[in-house]
Parts: sequence; C-alpha cells; structure tokens
Amino acid sequence: SRELFVLTYGALVAQLCKDYEKDEDVNACLDRMGYSIGIRLIDDFLARSAVKKCRSYSETADMIAQVAFKMYLGVTPSVSCSSATGNEFSLILDKNPLVDFVEELPAERASLCYCNLLCGVIRGALEMVHLAAEVTFLQDRLKGDAVTEIGITFLRKPEDRKHRR
Amino acid sequence: SRELFVLTYGALVAQLCKDYEKDEDVNACLDRMGYSIGIRLIDDFLARSAVKKCRSYSETADMIAQVAFKMYLGVTPSVSCSSATGNEFSLILDKNPLVDFVEELPAERASLCYCNLLCGVIRGALEMVHLAAEVTFLQDRLKGDAVTEIGITFLRKPEDRKHRR
Repeated sequence: SRELFVLTYGALVAQLCKDYEKDEDVNACLDRMGYSIGIRLIDDFLARSAVKKCRSYSETADMIAQVAFKMYLGVTPSVSCSSATGNEFSLILDKNPLVDFVEELPAERASLCYCNLLCGVIRGALEMVHLAAEVTFLQDRLKGDAVTEIGITFLRKPEDRKHRR
Repeated sequence: SRELFVLTYGALVAQLCKDYEKDEDVNACLDRMGYSIGIRLIDDFLARSAVKKCRSYSETADMIAQVAFKMYLGVTPSVSCSSATGNEFSLILDKNPLVDFVEELPAERASLCYCNLLCGVIRGALEMVHLAAEVTFLQDRLKGDAVTEIGITFLRKPEDRKHRR
C-alpha cells in the first residue's frame, strides 16, 4: 500500500521546509537524498525486474517509465523524445501518486519542486549503470501545469566514457 | 514495492538526526510525524479494509496486526495480551521491513527508536476511532533484542468516555 509512503514523503518534505528557508535548498536536498536512494535502489530494481541491458537511450527511458515507475509508484508515465540528438527524453505523468495528499503548494513555497526526490533517484540509479544524466522537473501539476513532466538528458554516450578511460 | 518507501524513511530519520542532537528529540519528532500521518491514514484504512467495528481491545489489537500491518508493511506481527486488566498488548515483529537497509545504529545514536514513526501512526489512527492509547517500542532488534516489540496500552474504555461526556 502506497499511502503510508506518500504521507511519510510529505513529512520529509515538510521537515526540510522547516530546515531550509529557500526553496532551492529544499530542492537540492531532496535531489541529494534521492541520489543516495537511487544508487541503492538500482540493485533491487535489477534483481526484481530481471531486465536485460538497454541498447539505447530510448530503451532506457522506456524502461524507467514502464518498469521502474510501475514497480515503485504504480504508475506508467508516457515517454517522448524531445531532441534531434536523441539524448533528451520526457516522462509525462498524468497522475502523480506522490502528491495524492497535497492540495497545493503554499504561496511562500512557489519554487518548491515537491517531488524532486524522484529526480535524484533516477539520476543515482542511472549513474550506477554508467549513464550520466541530468534529471529535472520541466512541468508540475502542483504549479498549475497541465501535466507533470520529468526531463532526462543523457550527458554522454557510454562509448565516449570507455574511450576517455 | 516497499524498497523506495523504506529508503525514503531512512532519509527522513537521517535528516532528523542531523537536525536534533538528542535521540529523545528525534524519537519525539518521529512520533509526532507519525501521529499526523495516522490521523490521515485511518480514512484510507477504513475505506480499503472494510473492517467492522471492533468490540474489544483484543479485537482492535488483532486488527492492527493482521490487517493494518499486512496492508501497509506487508508483515503480520503476532499479538499477545500482557496485562490482567486486558488493556495492554504487544505486537511482536520477527521481521521489520522498515529496517531492511539498516545494519545497526551508530554508537552515538544508541537511544534512537528508528521506527518510532510507527508508534505515532498507530496512536494517531486509534485516536481517530476514539481510542486513546500509549504506543512505544518495548524491544528492538536494532538494539540487540531478539525481536521487535511494540507495546500498545489502551488508556480508557470507550464506555468511560461516553459517561464522561
């Protein structure tokens, strides 16, 4: 059952809002925490999903949306590729279970990325399979956008890394 | 999937350990947070479990162990009544999923009740069905005990409350 998790996550965000005055600091802290979680969660994910190695960024993005989000949050975002170079993807969430109990952000917290932990989790997990990526919220229903959109930009190809090393 | 929740809970406890020097303050904060969660979670629990009204403390304790713990944590503690007056119960957990990623408490955090959020959740949820209770950890495997034991002491009978009002 997801409700206990969602409410506990809310308690975490509320605590960080007490701790940090600036939304940017809360966002950064959530991202760091998520990163630490992602680098541990990847083992669980690989063990339980039994997925094969992805052969492209596109396959990786689909895997995150269709297997990982489904497994951990019970939802499946749609995926779109948003660059000609094929390294930028968007995960579009019609429904975000993490905000089930959040009505709206308080006026003084307008820059808060409430779910920023997720970006860190994705970033950390990808790094553990040797994929460097930037992960950020591009749209957020909590901020009045029509959907919630997480942007993933893969920073370099695995081939590049091998050569560099 | 429970792993994301368990790791997020770990991040919450770690943050509180940064915020508060004394274990007692962390424990109290976790209990308060849990209480806030419990008073919201009870609606979800009643809606999804479709349980009938409990007729005794004993039935209530069984319900917490067999339905609520199973639903939210995927485990079923055993229940024992530990007082002649019939208002004290113990939930005994052989396995506590919330500590799956915790090896041991650091030496300087020997008094930390890592899972104290659970006590607050139970207390808050019970209060919403008009049952005042004290809920505390009596044993904790993280502290070297053989099992993890949560003690629930119901403070007064519903009948008493009715008369008083």
